[in-house]
Amino acid sequence: MKISLLLTGNELMSGDTVDSNSAYIARSLKDLGLVPYIKKVVGDDLPLLVSSIQELSQMTDVLIINGGLGPTVDDLTSVALSQAINSPITRNVDAYAKLDEWATRRGFVMTESNLKQTDLPAVCEIIDNPKGSAVGFRCIANDCLIMCTPGVPSELKPMVENHLLPLIRDHGNIVAKSHITRLRLFGITESGLQDTVNEVFPDWPAEVELGFRVQLPVIEVKFATVGDEFMALNHLWTEKFEAHFRDYVIGRDSIRLSQALNDALRDHSLVLTTAESCTGGQIAAAITSEAGSSSVFEAGYVVYSNRMKQQSLGVSEALLAEHGAVSKAVVIAMAEGAIEKSAADIAVSISGIAGPDGGTDEKPVGVVWMAWGKAGKITARKFFLPMGRIGFQRTATALAMDLVRREVLGLPTDIDYFSELKKKR
Amino acid sequence: MKISLLLTGNELMSGDTVDSNSAYIARSLKDLGLVPYIKKVVGDDLPLLVSSIQELSQMTDVLIINGGLGPTVDDLTSVALSQAINSPITRNVDAYAKLDEWATRRGFVMTESNLKQTDLPAVCEIIDNPKGSAVGFRCIANDCLIMCTPGVPSELKPMVENHLLPLIRDHGNIVAKSHITRLRLFGITESGLQDTVNEVFPDWPAEVELGFRVQLPVIEVKFATVGDEFMALNHLWTEKFEAHFRDYVIGRDSIRLSQALNDALRDHSLVLTTAESCTGGQIAAAITSEAGSSSVFEAGYVVYSNRMKQQSLGVSEALLAEHGAVSKAVVIAMAEGAIEKSAADIAVSISGIAGPDGGTDEKPVGVVWMAWGKAGKITARKFFLPMGRIGFQRTATALAMDLVRREVLGLPTDIDYFSELKKKR
Repeated sequence: MKISLLLTGNELMSGDTVDSNSAYIARSLKDLGLVPYIKKVVGDDLPLLVSSIQELSQMTDVLIINGGLGPTVDDLTSVALSQAINSPITRNVDAYAKLDEWATRRGFVMTESNLKQTDLPAVCEIIDNPKGSAVGFRCIANDCLIMCTPGVPSELKPMVENHLLPLIRDHGNIVAKSHITRLRLFGITESGLQDTVNEVFPDWPAEVELGFRVQLPVIEVKFATVGDEFMALNHLWTEKFEAHFRDYVIGRDSIRLSQALNDALRDHSLVLTTAESCTGGQIAAAITSEAGSSSVFEAGYVVYSNRMKQQSLGVSEALLAEHGAVSKAVVIAMAEGAIEKSAADIAVSISGIAGPDGGTDEKPVGVVWMAWGKAGKITARKFFLPMGRIGFQRTATALAMDLVRREVLGLPTDIDYFSELKKKR
Repeated sequence: MKISLLLTGNELMSGDTVDSNSAYIARSLKDLGLVPYIKKVVGDDLPLLVSSIQELSQMTDVLIINGGLGPTVDDLTSVALSQAINSPITRNVDAYAKLDEWATRRGFVMTESNLKQTDLPAVCEIIDNPKGSAVGFRCIANDCLIMCTPGVPSELKPMVENHLLPLIRDHGNIVAKSHITRLRLFGITESGLQDTVNEVFPDWPAEVELGFRVQLPVIEVKFATVGDEFMALNHLWTEKFEAHFRDYVIGRDSIRLSQALNDALRDHSLVLTTAESCTGGQIAAAITSEAGSSSVFEAGYVVYSNRMKQQSLGVSEALLAEHGAVSKAVVIAMAEGAIEKSAADIAVSISGIAGPDGGTDEKPVGVVWMAWGKAGKITARKFFLPMGRIGFQRTATALAMDLVRREVLGLPTDIDYFSELKKKR
């Protein structure tokens, strides 16, 4: 069954309003196993509304029109539908009764503007709107179920739940349901994932539709099947995928990397401390953005200058002079110092050149050293992230969190981040 | 001139993603005095993409296609355009060169998936994408300027500013030039601004169109005029507005609050330090997200526990016991301690209850104390920000930065944030 959406309103064209109604309708349709086929958005333009209604009602089985039901002159849905399906405007008795009741209950006197909301194409039946003065209305034309709905989200939502979904189910004789599973991964690119899936799973079943969505810094992978009979297949292939990409999967649904790290620390009863130079507190900020982080985090050090690396963390002047602030020796000393000063169980430290200035031939902008681990057992790694200051800081923060997560969970910390997985395996 | 938008991606149809790109494009088009005529949104469906491109390119003068440029099999824009305008797919030399450079710079090896992004309809020229691997591309077909753009917002935005608007201006011979001035304000609400403008400037000229856009934590106010003859009027009324709201204006164009604070500190040759409890490093992270922050920031302390407030900042146990961690006395001691430990010129400290847990009747979730100033001259203020953990941390971070900015610039720090300005004046 094909479903189309027609959204109307000048505010949607000017960019003053971001359309969230259509996303709400789409998410609701998932319960019926349906995904809209096409959406069209037009301003308050009568000829364009008329032609759009004609086109969409011929092209699809259900047309949901959203917006344009209000009392003002720029609310054109009723007139446009009347012209598109060639059904004259008349005063709808049911709509009038509803409006009368609505006005009486609130002690309002109906105005001409209000009454306009009861003038509907003759073939239409109303759809109840418990939340507002404008009823919805519906008809069947070109074998298409056409439903007109209010643009105000608080009025739209109960109408979708209580009326639209049952009407669509009846119209389409729908029984099949869709199942969606979601995984989130860090440390692999979209193209790396796609290439690996093609190579490793040549027999991936067509019934399990794979979708990728970049939600920086993670990637969300969606596994969708339609019909209860494919639910087991969905679970089976989600598990195969998860097993293959095990190292990269941070969790299900909408888990954040900072949340996965908090969970890992909490599960292992570990308290983390951070010693940050180039990320300037972003690692600490990300960890403490999660509720309950006080049980896994007590202290963080932002040490931008060499002087502060010495004073706050006890990094020796000699070490800084010999190796420079961006070096393996210094990040290890920073991590050891942070554990000693804070009495935390585990530390992560970072020092690099975020740019735009400060790079040298030997240590160009984008070079960063990270160290992590428990006292006396600190590991360090170097990365090169030449992606601008903002991208550098964000990526370095994410990598640092992931390295600690891996360390805590006993996963390898020497993986090739963001390169194609298949080359590695 | 008629403009159409075609947005593509299954995630836009399923409701998983709310389309904000088209609103961004529409707001940008306002600078040329243009409003899109029609928007269409379709999934990753080749026949539907092809017919939509044909329909919209025949119906309008400019067609902006957004999404579907990525490396995966569900990215169909290039193939769809090729079929719609009957121009065969070939490997585009310029696109290849850009991708090669992009990959080399990052030390990536190009895969087959990546290379797919360089296969474009033969008639197309590329549109540069400084932010990502997928170039945009354009051609003219059916007398329509067709431009294909990436779905990732951070890649789309510079492409719109730098390439799409000039291309559209050239294509449409747009001469009536619009002049746009932008101010950014912090600490006042959109409705507070609107009400004050209505009251203070009853004679605001119709030629200077005022637009407000919330860009948390700041508000952007846009002054738009069309035609060179109104440029002076634009400047005059922008200045009147700026003079009236002087305390709240942090700067012009797209200045960030963190940038305004960096500028103020640099202009006064001051080094700042931060002592953060409930914001967990967000203030330090925001300040150091700005290039060149090392000249105004050396050290920050994230002190989540009472123990660390004592150890890192020398806050006395007695003070903590007497007043509690969220108190005027403790934030003042934190600020004094941070200056002493780091030898900075000025400090800001913060301690509050971010929630969701940890609130009491006396100090509910949302209560926060902040202190700022130079050694021996610390001022403190209490705020109540009951807006959820994320909103609390963001707002507290912004308020802390603004208070230091005001202190440095000699502006009042006792203003009523976010209440209507007119009540205050």
